[in-house]
Amino acid sequence: MDSALVLDGQGELWVREGRRVRAGERVAVGTTEDGSEGIFVHTQAFLGEGAEGGEFKFMTSEVSREKPIDYVLMAQLLLEERDRGGYPVWVTGPALVHSRARADMVWFIQNGFVGALLAGNAVAVHDIEAAMYGTTLGMTNNGVASAGGHGIHMRAINQIRAVGSIAGAVRQGLITNGIMHALVERSVPFVLTGSIRDDGPLPDVITDAVQGQDTMREHATRASMAIFVATALHAIGTGNMLPAFVMEDPETGRPTSRPRGSSPAEWPRLREMATICVDSSEFVVSKLKDRGTHQAFGVVTNAQDFMHILRLYVERALIERERAPRRDSVPSAVTP
Amino acid sequence: MDSALVLDGQGELWVREGRRVRAGERVAVGTTEDGSEGIFVHTQAFLGEGAEGGEFKFMTSEVSREKPIDYVLMAQLLLEERDRGGYPVWVTGPALVHSRARADMVWFIQNGFVGALLAGNAVAVHDIEAAMYGTTLGMTNNGVASAGGHGIHMRAINQIRAVGSIAGAVRQGLITNGIMHALVERSVPFVLTGSIRDDGPLPDVITDAVQGQDTMREHATRASMAIFVATALHAIGTGNMLPAFVMEDPETGRPTSRPRGSSPAEWPRLREMATICVDSSEFVVSKLKDRGTHQAFGVVTNAQDFMHILRLYVERALIERERAPRRDSVPSAVTP
Amino acid sequence: MDSALVLDGQGELWVREGRRVRAGERVAVGTTEDGSEGIFVHTQAFLGEGAEGGEFKFMTSEVSREKPIDYVLMAQLLLEERDRGGYPVWVTGPALVHSRARADMVWFIQNGFVGALLAGNAVAVHDIEAAMYGTTLGMTNNGVASAGGHGIHMRAINQIRAVGSIAGAVRQGLITNGIMHALVERSVPFVLTGSIRDDGPLPDVITDAVQGQDTMREHATRASMAIFVATALHAIGTGNMLPAFVMEDPETGRPTSRPRGSSPAEWPRLREMATICVDSSEFVVSKLKDRGTHQAFGVVTNAQDFMHILRLYVERALIERERAPRRDSVPSAVTP
Amino acid sequence: MDSALVLDGQGELWVREGRRVRAGERVAVGTTEDGSEGIFVHTQAFLGEGAEGGEFKFMTSEVSREKPIDYVLMAQLLLEERDRGGYPVWVTGPALVHSRARADMVWFIQNGFVGALLAGNAVAVHDIEAAMYGTTLGMTNNGVASAGGHGIHMRAINQIRAVGSIAGAVRQGLITNGIMHALVERSVPFVLTGSIRDDGPLPDVITDAVQGQDTMREHATRASMAIFVATALHAIGTGNMLPAFVMEDPETGRPTSRPRGSSPAEWPRLREMATICVDSSEFVVSKLKDRGTHQAFGVVTNAQDFMHILRLYVERALIERERAPRRDSVPSAVTP
Repeated sequence: MDSALVLDGQGELWVREGRRVRAGERVAVGTTEDGSEGIFVHTQAFLGEGAEGGEFKFMTSEVSREKPIDYVLMAQLLLEERDRGGYPVWVTGPALVHSRARADMVWFIQNGFVGALLAGNAVAVHDIEAAMYGTTLGMTNNGVASAGGHGIHMRAINQIRAVGSIAGAVRQGLITNGIMHALVERSVPFVLTGSIRDDGPLPDVITDAVQGQDTMREHATRASMAIFVATALHAIGTGNMLPAFVMEDPETGRPTSRPRGSSPAEWPRLREMATICVDSSEFVVSKLKDRGTHQAFGVVTNAQDFMHILRLYVERALIERERAPRRDSVPSAVTP
Repeated sequence: MDSALVLDGQGELWVREGRRVRAGERVAVGTTEDGSEGIFVHTQAFLGEGAEGGEFKFMTSEVSREKPIDYVLMAQLLLEERDRGGYPVWVTGPALVHSRARADMVWFIQNGFVGALLAGNAVAVHDIEAAMYGTTLGMTNNGVASAGGHGIHMRAINQIRAVGSIAGAVRQGLITNGIMHALVERSVPFVLTGSIRDDGPLPDVITDAVQGQDTMREHATRASMAIFVATALHAIGTGNMLPAFVMEDPETGRPTSRPRGSSPAEWPRLREMATICVDSSEFVVSKLKDRGTHQAFGVVTNAQDFMHILRLYVERALIERERAPRRDSVPSAVTP
Repeated sequence: MDSALVLDGQGELWVREGRRVRAGERVAVGTTEDGSEGIFVHTQAFLGEGAEGGEFKFMTSEVSREKPIDYVLMAQLLLEERDRGGYPVWVTGPALVHSRARADMVWFIQNGFVGALLAGNAVAVHDIEAAMYGTTLGMTNNGVASAGGHGIHMRAINQIRAVGSIAGAVRQGLITNGIMHALVERSVPFVLTGSIRDDGPLPDVITDAVQGQDTMREHATRASMAIFVATALHAIGTGNMLPAFVMEDPETGRPTSRPRGSSPAEWPRLREMATICVDSSEFVVSKLKDRGTHQAFGVVTNAQDFMHILRLYVERALIERERAPRRDSVPSAVTP
Repeated sequence: MDSALVLDGQGELWVREGRRVRAGERVAVGTTEDGSEGIFVHTQAFLGEGAEGGEFKFMTSEVSREKPIDYVLMAQLLLEERDRGGYPVWVTGPALVHSRARADMVWFIQNGFVGALLAGNAVAVHDIEAAMYGTTLGMTNNGVASAGGHGIHMRAINQIRAVGSIAGAVRQGLITNGIMHALVERSVPFVLTGSIRDDGPLPDVITDAVQGQDTMREHATRASMAIFVATALHAIGTGNMLPAFVMEDPETGRPTSRPRGSSPAEWPRLREMATICVDSSEFVVSKLKDRGTHQAFGVVTNAQDFMHILRLYVERALIERERAPRRDSVPSAVTP
């Protein structure tokens, strides 16, 4: 959205950030959205026939802690993504590690539900502190602040800096459990981007924001689903890079891309990208929408509880699936 | 706390609200807490030897969404209450019914974990609307506002008003499921108190605030545990009435009261009353503490998720208990 | 909204709560809003030609702390209400008194900007505690909790109970300043309604919720503007009673009502009722809208700061008005 | 706090981040705080004789929207800082610019109350968009989203990138008003640090987080007062770098530093550093304290209102000062 539409010499359209547009390139410049200046914005693409009617309605606010949370649907979306070889991108904040959701995140990684993890220095630091010392920021997993505990994460950081990388520390047996361990073991890519409040930082952290964005974008543009948990900065950063849709092979449902120079008849099928945003307050989801990620589906809850229940529902669905005769049909497009 | 200490002619001490104190009664009037005016406040009664030491600490705020939630401990507390014939008082807000926690609340009632329920008109209205029409304030349990749905709760209210009471509607088969149904079926007492934003109200609702307080107090003073879920007004109201401690029979652990005229040697054992307060924001728990309920243990999360996980952990503990040889010893006092 | 439309024998339409509808009365019963069952809901009545166009927009969330607050407009609305003899109803919570906004509220009362005040026991208790002892809940106006201060509000309550009424205490010189004093002195009506968390309560408090609603409704139906400050319960309660519009005399702009049996040509002019809702979080305003007060204009800020700046802007406008030659034209309808 | 204490060859103590400690350096390594391992933490340094006494107290939570805000004291602190040549460091988020506080921030800069401004890309982008186009993220200063407005900030960014720097754009007359204009005109230093959600970024933005920290630290270590407004990331980042105290010349009150090799008798006087943290929710201030900035004084309000009232109180104090005979005594140390 914060980019320019550029038409190249071969007739291909590109979405390019302002700093990548070069003098002489052909850029779409209209400001109206009704086609009168050559640009038509098709806003109804993913909307079914809405049940708009009726002025007198309660409970119409978009994001609210009073809305029920449909874990059955979210579990089904995750399973379908795995079935069709999707690329679900998770973006998480450190509250996930402070609370007891760490084990649940590991479970999702180990069971193939994570295409990539985008996070900051703190997620990795707290996770590695927990792996090495059993605390996060010196707090035990009972929520008790331990005396002297404020320095523990620095010891963890120092050890990883001495080795040179998180993957190296996993290989040397320094890190034997947790999120970063699972990512390395399962070869799931992760991107850690830096911020001005980081301690350390860890050697894997990309401290340059522009380089960090570029690396995140490689995953955001491949994403077929997005899950944001307890993070404002990284959720909005990633949200700005996410397409609103996924291209999928109409036969297999597998995410794909449009072959260059293909005719419309050959184009992949589009579906809206399922985007889940979990936060303790309505504010982050509203802010995400204000910054342009309209399709975000907001869950106002605690990160620990969200992860725990979501895993439970995925596990239940897996058990039911084992009991039931296997569907061999292609999963249909899902509109959350 | 907002009451007077009154010494009657038989040498018994009473805690009485200002409006119940009569001219001529002997009332404790000191304002210092160190004994110098005859009143000594023993503040350390339920504190173990604290691990205070150390100025440099992180994560010391009392209530925070970043703190882990100890569901294992809370499930254990509930089970022990049931084992020893305790009287856990639940105080809930309507978000419990809007979200999908309704079935979990029913489960707790049906399985003996609820001594009494204190709530407002809305909890019963939404629950009965859900029982009769499948919606809450016209919102389906998928969180979708239905056209015309704003009037459904009024139809539910009208039907109960025609019958004359909730229990009557259960007996006539008008209400066949849900929280109110389970309470009536299990003969668990409930108190519904009114407020100025009530529709209806339902015939069971005590619309007079002072009479409502008196009825709530009958349960609050018997309570051996308190669970507040997603309510500010009712949590603070009940919190003001709750003792900070439970008197229990030293042999059975069963809640009891001090026999009138008994000597100190015959007095029951005291333990701190476990109080759990669940809300989506830190604010309610802080406010509860600001109004004097110091022992409240805060859980910052969504009502639906809290109820769902708490039930899961209680169910797990029950399964483990069936597998393991039954403890026949008396459960020890628990300090959360 | 939570009421029935009743047509009486004289052809007049009434909005009546369910409990006031009698057997045999003619009640509008359609559920659609498009006229197909005889009821047509005119939703665009107060909307100008909207600037809807365009899908790509930022900052479209309805309520957000990141939105600017238009104090100039709000001050102008208050002044115009006073000019045309309007009836602005204020609904406030106790935070107004805890913080330093008490003096500002007094100023608005003394200068004729308050038609009626609707509040709970706590607002009056804290205000009277401040008048008698200089503290609120024992907290000094520097925000410091004073030792022994938890009992001060009970002393204040006791004194008023001994006198029998707030007005009596003002007349006897027990209360010499503050909000309640100003209301009594200026003969501005106030309604104090009770809740289950009230201490005391004060003798003026209507403890029955249904009777309280009826008394509030007398003012809500006369209101020509509504200002809600730092209150959830009372704001939503009042919001449920407020019409969405004001009838005004087209000549004078003065609020009026429709003469019984008048022909449409004689009807007063309608304008949307300006409704301002101030709270520290987006949640209350969203909840107000979810419960049906669509026209609420939300200000996410602190009660103290809101009152202070609003007064400043009204004072500035008054000074400018004194300097400028007086407009003698009728103020035009204002659509906030 | 997240650093090591290093003793150099000349007997000087340094606080150094882990990545700057070299092999062979002498580092304090004790973990206890009671002197038993050679380190004694003096926790009472800035506390007067506390009024701790009394268990029964209301309103004791540290940060709450129900606490009064002492603008008189804060205005006085700012004035005293300016009088003694202090270095107040302001750290702000973009809400300051979205709302109408921009003009107030400019006033503080122009009147000498800002030693340095630390912020992110967005503050400068929105401010420059406002200077060039009159909108922020396409929202007018009435809070209305303008059609096509989502692209305006990109046009602003592009123009500054073409010039090469903000200061250059001010000199060329492209930016003629606002915060960045005032900073450049008054030669007040500013640091803009990047994050992964930045558009552009502007040419002045330091995109590398570590380099950004180092630049911020140059100002944080000189600070004699800190004001955080509506920012979480930058507030916590800066909070981590701020000393808890200011060294001041006992004669002039002017901030100073300890001369190398000086004896205790020559050391400057210490006072606690006044730190004000303004946010719409209690969460940020609690988080700041959880991360170690214990002395933060929290104001729970809206950025716009805070800035507006603070300025008003400073203006009033200036007027009073003009009227009153000038004090010629040295201002005493202030403990907020």
